[in-house]
Amino acid sequence: MRVANFNGGPGALPLEVLEEAARDMLDWRGSGMSVMENSHRGKEVIAMMAEAEADLKALLGLDEEWAVIFCQGGASLQFAMIALNFAGPGGHCDYINTGLWATKAYKEAKICGAKPRLAASSEDDDFTYIPEVFDFDPEAKYVYLTANNTVRGTQWSTFPKAPAPLIADMSSEFLSRSIDLSRFALIYAGAQKNVGPAGLTVVALRREMADRARLDVPNMLSYPVYIKHQSMYNTPPVWSVYVAGLTCKWIRNTIGGLKAMTELNQAKAETLYRAIDDSGGFYRGTAKSSSRSLMNVTFRLPRVELNDKFKKESAGTGLVGLGGHRSVGGLRASLYNAVTLADVQTLVEFMAEFKRKNG
Amino acid sequence: MRVANFNGGPGALPLEVLEEAARDMLDWRGSGMSVMENSHRGKEVIAMMAEAEADLKALLGLDEEWAVIFCQGGASLQFAMIALNFAGPGGHCDYINTGLWATKAYKEAKICGAKPRLAASSEDDDFTYIPEVFDFDPEAKYVYLTANNTVRGTQWSTFPKAPAPLIADMSSEFLSRSIDLSRFALIYAGAQKNVGPAGLTVVALRREMADRARLDVPNMLSYPVYIKHQSMYNTPPVWSVYVAGLTCKWIRNTIGGLKAMTELNQAKAETLYRAIDDSGGFYRGTAKSSSRSLMNVTFRLPRVELNDKFKKESAGTGLVGLGGHRSVGGLRASLYNAVTLADVQTLVEFMAEFKRKNG
Repeated sequence: MRVANFNGGPGALPLEVLEEAARDMLDWRGSGMSVMENSHRGKEVIAMMAEAEADLKALLGLDEEWAVIFCQGGASLQFAMIALNFAGPGGHCDYINTGLWATKAYKEAKICGAKPRLAASSEDDDFTYIPEVFDFDPEAKYVYLTANNTVRGTQWSTFPKAPAPLIADMSSEFLSRSIDLSRFALIYAGAQKNVGPAGLTVVALRREMADRARLDVPNMLSYPVYIKHQSMYNTPPVWSVYVAGLTCKWIRNTIGGLKAMTELNQAKAETLYRAIDDSGGFYRGTAKSSSRSLMNVTFRLPRVELNDKFKKESAGTGLVGLGGHRSVGGLRASLYNAVTLADVQTLVEFMAEFKRKNG
Repeated sequence: MRVANFNGGPGALPLEVLEEAARDMLDWRGSGMSVMENSHRGKEVIAMMAEAEADLKALLGLDEEWAVIFCQGGASLQFAMIALNFAGPGGHCDYINTGLWATKAYKEAKICGAKPRLAASSEDDDFTYIPEVFDFDPEAKYVYLTANNTVRGTQWSTFPKAPAPLIADMSSEFLSRSIDLSRFALIYAGAQKNVGPAGLTVVALRREMADRARLDVPNMLSYPVYIKHQSMYNTPPVWSVYVAGLTCKWIRNTIGGLKAMTELNQAKAETLYRAIDDSGGFYRGTAKSSSRSLMNVTFRLPRVELNDKFKKESAGTGLVGLGGHRSVGGLRASLYNAVTLADVQTLVEFMAEFKRKNG
């Protein structure tokens, strides 16, 4: 029996996507092979990857000034690639610190020999809010931020106007809402939240940004190399791109596009936040209201021991993945694209019942 | 209908593995989710990855002195990781050049600031043989070789005794034959030939080798970081490890272990080489006999235009992937683990018929 999957990532995938992937397993597109067994240099895989790229660009509303590439290594490898390509040894760069992932990106830039600086931080209040005041370094080669903080459940609503090219880790909100990308030079996302399996990182970057990249970095860490070879400098993660491609088609055809996806995600988040806010203080959201994430709803119970009870009993009724990130504890419901409104309604009903019994 | 898949990689996967993966798709191990939707921090995925690691170590005959880790980025990222971890800026290192992949590894070491040197090369005869004389640099931090050359169809039978830790790219022969690994310090393999989907690189290294690694490299490129975090510094490519784990069990349970796998692969290669050698010169093997690969059988036809005809007609009868590597042309049959003896026999019959019509 399928469960309601509130995992923080890897997260839920659309049922229709999984069903198609299972059906295709022995004979993909009449090739007599799984997509995994097809040559990446064959015309079928090349066409599939080009489709996935085109679908991503269409969903994101990106024109020819942008390239979409498929990398590996998750956000953690992007932390290094960004610093190596765009700052380099001694190069200045600005980071906005909204929590664990931004902190890691900042530290990785240091390891790579760059000179990162904090343009803003919400560490003073436990990363429960998104900063609104910035101290940008005029020499910075780029400004880096994390669009959605999975751990603390915060999300940017309006992005800053930065004096340098703006780079964003969009891993946990990628394709979850319509965003004006005109302010950005590069965005990326580990696929395992909203798009596909772990092992794929989707990067969209302006071609003029790629032209600024340093050329002294290893091939597999060089954005221009990925662009030049259409993500096939070496064997790409074909299966993961395939699943991501199916998910893009699902957003377009089943959901009705990114605008419809946005509305659905708003409805899901509103349903859950309302249940929290109307619980008379039994459930308490941990992020500041104005910085609340549509994707990761973080909350706590009045007594610490109730958190474990909640996790255990919810899992017992088929609501899984409701524990908070291991670094902060508490509870968290991740409402990624493939989580349905019905899943959220079931959760809200469970919460009401749990409160009745333990309130 | 399933085809006989002679692709050079990504290549064939065992039918039983694909069937199990399809069956598991909506509900893996009773979790109510695909393995892709499970949290990598959950006990089920942790157990699955530990099993895959243990099965790999058992198949390879590795003891506690070795660690097995799961990376991403294919061989091409290993080229950089090896140079960054074990040579570093100005560090000496020896490369044995047996073709395209060794050449790329050598060049990547240069990009990483190391001082690679060629200890031997078979470039003088178009990489058609494995060198037997070496000029090792006493200052080298390691000696690097490619165990099997997919492009030219050559393979080492006896590995050299090197004065420095021996590192091997085993991508296209991994788990295809029993090898005495006592001479090696690190071996690695892109999974997409014999073990699983593209997007996973399996690395086995001695712990004492990891202790020699430089500590100034980015986290996602640091072998000690992978070991310390059991390949979970960040989200690992769960699906790919899962499929690789299924393939290991298939080698053990269906084939009967690595010794039986070796014998089967020898029988497959002998069948095909015999057909080539007994064709009265119609089919000509391109590698020197003593250096022939069990995995990639490269051959040519008497007239260039026949190669295309062969490829087209063989594909028409369900024998796919028989074109040579795009850098050298000709023909190539890759006989990875999941290619059956029956597949090879069908190919040999096709070759006899093709010769009869075109000889």
